[in-house]
Amino acid sequence: MKAMDPASQQAGRQAMQWAELLAQHTEAAGMLTRTYLTPTHQAAAAALTQWMEQSGLRVRRDNAGNVIGRYEAAPGCEHRPALVTGSHFDTVRNAGKYDGNLGIVLPLACIAQWHRAGKRFAFPIEVIGFAEEEGVRFKATLLGSRTVAGTFDPAVLENLDGEGISMRQAIRAAGLDPAGIAGDAWSPASVAAFVEVHIEQGPLLLNEGLPVGVVTAISGASRFMAEVRGLAGHAGTVPMHLRRDAAMAAAEIGLYIERRCGIKPGLVGTMGILEVVQGAANVVPGLASFSIDIRAEEDADRLAAVADVRAEIERIAARRQVSIDVRQTHEAASVPCAPRLQAALARAIERAGLAVRHLPSGAGHDAMAMAPLGEVAMLFVRCGNGGISHHPDETMSTEDACIAAEVFSHLVEQFQP
Amino acid sequence: MKAMDPASQQAGRQAMQWAELLAQHTEAAGMLTRTYLTPTHQAAAAALTQWMEQSGLRVRRDNAGNVIGRYEAAPGCEHRPALVTGSHFDTVRNAGKYDGNLGIVLPLACIAQWHRAGKRFAFPIEVIGFAEEEGVRFKATLLGSRTVAGTFDPAVLENLDGEGISMRQAIRAAGLDPAGIAGDAWSPASVAAFVEVHIEQGPLLLNEGLPVGVVTAISGASRFMAEVRGLAGHAGTVPMHLRRDAAMAAAEIGLYIERRCGIKPGLVGTMGILEVVQGAANVVPGLASFSIDIRAEEDADRLAAVADVRAEIERIAARRQVSIDVRQTHEAASVPCAPRLQAALARAIERAGLAVRHLPSGAGHDAMAMAPLGEVAMLFVRCGNGGISHHPDETMSTEDACIAAEVFSHLVEQFQP
Repeated sequence: MKAMDPASQQAGRQAMQWAELLAQHTEAAGMLTRTYLTPTHQAAAAALTQWMEQSGLRVRRDNAGNVIGRYEAAPGCEHRPALVTGSHFDTVRNAGKYDGNLGIVLPLACIAQWHRAGKRFAFPIEVIGFAEEEGVRFKATLLGSRTVAGTFDPAVLENLDGEGISMRQAIRAAGLDPAGIAGDAWSPASVAAFVEVHIEQGPLLLNEGLPVGVVTAISGASRFMAEVRGLAGHAGTVPMHLRRDAAMAAAEIGLYIERRCGIKPGLVGTMGILEVVQGAANVVPGLASFSIDIRAEEDADRLAAVADVRAEIERIAARRQVSIDVRQTHEAASVPCAPRLQAALARAIERAGLAVRHLPSGAGHDAMAMAPLGEVAMLFVRCGNGGISHHPDETMSTEDACIAAEVFSHLVEQFQP
Repeated sequence: MKAMDPASQQAGRQAMQWAELLAQHTEAAGMLTRTYLTPTHQAAAAALTQWMEQSGLRVRRDNAGNVIGRYEAAPGCEHRPALVTGSHFDTVRNAGKYDGNLGIVLPLACIAQWHRAGKRFAFPIEVIGFAEEEGVRFKATLLGSRTVAGTFDPAVLENLDGEGISMRQAIRAAGLDPAGIAGDAWSPASVAAFVEVHIEQGPLLLNEGLPVGVVTAISGASRFMAEVRGLAGHAGTVPMHLRRDAAMAAAEIGLYIERRCGIKPGLVGTMGILEVVQGAANVVPGLASFSIDIRAEEDADRLAAVADVRAEIERIAARRQVSIDVRQTHEAASVPCAPRLQAALARAIERAGLAVRHLPSGAGHDAMAMAPLGEVAMLFVRCGNGGISHHPDETMSTEDACIAAEVFSHLVEQFQP
């Protein structure tokens, strides 16, 4: 790659420092956990507010708790649609430092450099720290971006956390007004584009030696929970040919999913939960439960895989004389990233002297929920350590943060609203 | 079959009544659970003592809590070795009524008929209600039969139950003397043979329409616990070809065990425990645990299967780049039933006008622990309901109890010490 702009280097280092500071705001000692509207989460919001103000942004908070900073446009351009960026500052339990948080602090660090240089653009930039994406505390995801996009479902206000506190109560206790959430939706006219920076959370860029990549689409996903009922029996006395083993039916289904989803790049299938219910070493399993998660960049690929898996489940159930109850728990269509924005990201990457790699996002992101407001795009940053994420071993290098800052800066500097 | 002897019919019905009465002695309402030396277990011992005395037996109790009834030989034969029979009166949690208990009450009911008729044999008969076989309370099995055989391991006296009470304390609290257990061993010279009557706990006799069968051997068993370490990852972002999925490695091993143990009758293999540790639908499993239980009538068959499974585990671990730690938790050789006693049981079955079926016992039984004292044999009685056992759905018909009583009576009447 080319020699890096010193401002991008400073921005990258600043982003890494802020990520480190943000990680200090945790509910659990010895690990990073920061869930929606806890005191810890509120403290993180206060830190973001302070950094945004220091970086020349005007900060406001909406009723979902999103922290929104506006870097005003050059004089005369204040009423133009904004380039919107950002990501979430809540985390999973025992999380990594960069998932979500990076997408707030990295653009902010770039803006801090422009602010210092007195540079403004022909469009405002809005940086959103989305208050909630992971769904840990109230089992409802993407609360922040759904508020902004106007798709927040008020029914989830009744969801309870582990201590019996409703989301409505938690929002009120934070000094916010649940009734105001519907009015916090942005108008599509105010948004030129939404571009999210995010750690890849997978190993593709790492394996190819590339620091950044352009997301083509956020994969659609189908998710199921299933229960297999066979016949429990004594492990010593029931001959193999007379068994109706619930666990082996589940095992066969798992290996089929693995094989079926391995035939096409961009398609993935996972049995993340697999358990013999009250299993014992000397008992033939009578009851087993498992999950299925199937995702693909192309909805047609995903739906074909789901249909094949369901048909195979029927065949396995019939052959093994077990009953298998399959219940769908989630269904989301693929959200494509705008070709125009993908091209702009690709040009910014080329300008940094790097090879352009397009890749789908198998994980869901705020960009998915922001799609109703207009075109969306995502810049992925290489994830170290084999691509591990949602885990304390999630890592990212400062060098990659600097490169991502350079690419993001090029994007903004060349951006055509 | 031939018309049944009225005494055997009465004995069969009496055995079923006693099994029903014994099942009233339970620690848990609505289910049968009776563990070693609880008040419930002591009450069952008192009931057995009473029935033995009513049936003409002289009853004693040893320091393990075994209830031992002696039906004296005809005059002049009192010093001959005894025909010993019996089984255990402890149960698993939420047990069936016949497992163990049947092997005490059925011989006892036969003796009650002989006692009424004033009939004595050229040898004494000893009926043992073994106090413990299942290992539920103190995680140590076969305590009763090991005491009689002289193989009781005093180290298990320190084992604690779920409430922190040691076995030593429990034995003392029952008015027994743990230090006396070693002296309760029987001399091999006092035992002519041990013949155990037991419900099959499997579906073989049921499927072949036969009420009873002759056990050829108590299968040997090898048991293992294993842990697979792969690499956890995001279910949406890690491509299939880069995964090191711990659960799918376990699934593949399970299906191999199933296939490998299906090639030979009398060989069985079970993965009774299978679990993704802290599994979540959206996470590629990084850690899975499972059990392996392999049993066979012939030790060579079992050991060959174990070797093949271990080799396959190595291959699967290498191919999938996961590490698999396999720890053996149990190893027991097959205990063959004496050909002479098998032949005597077969003659008794033929005399009852029934076809003779030989079958191995995949489950462990007191007869296994009694082998050091001399020749052992077992008579299996058909298990209803698909062969379910260790479960409240375990059933047995009164007609089969009557047939078993007839066969047991023929055996005793023709027995050559």
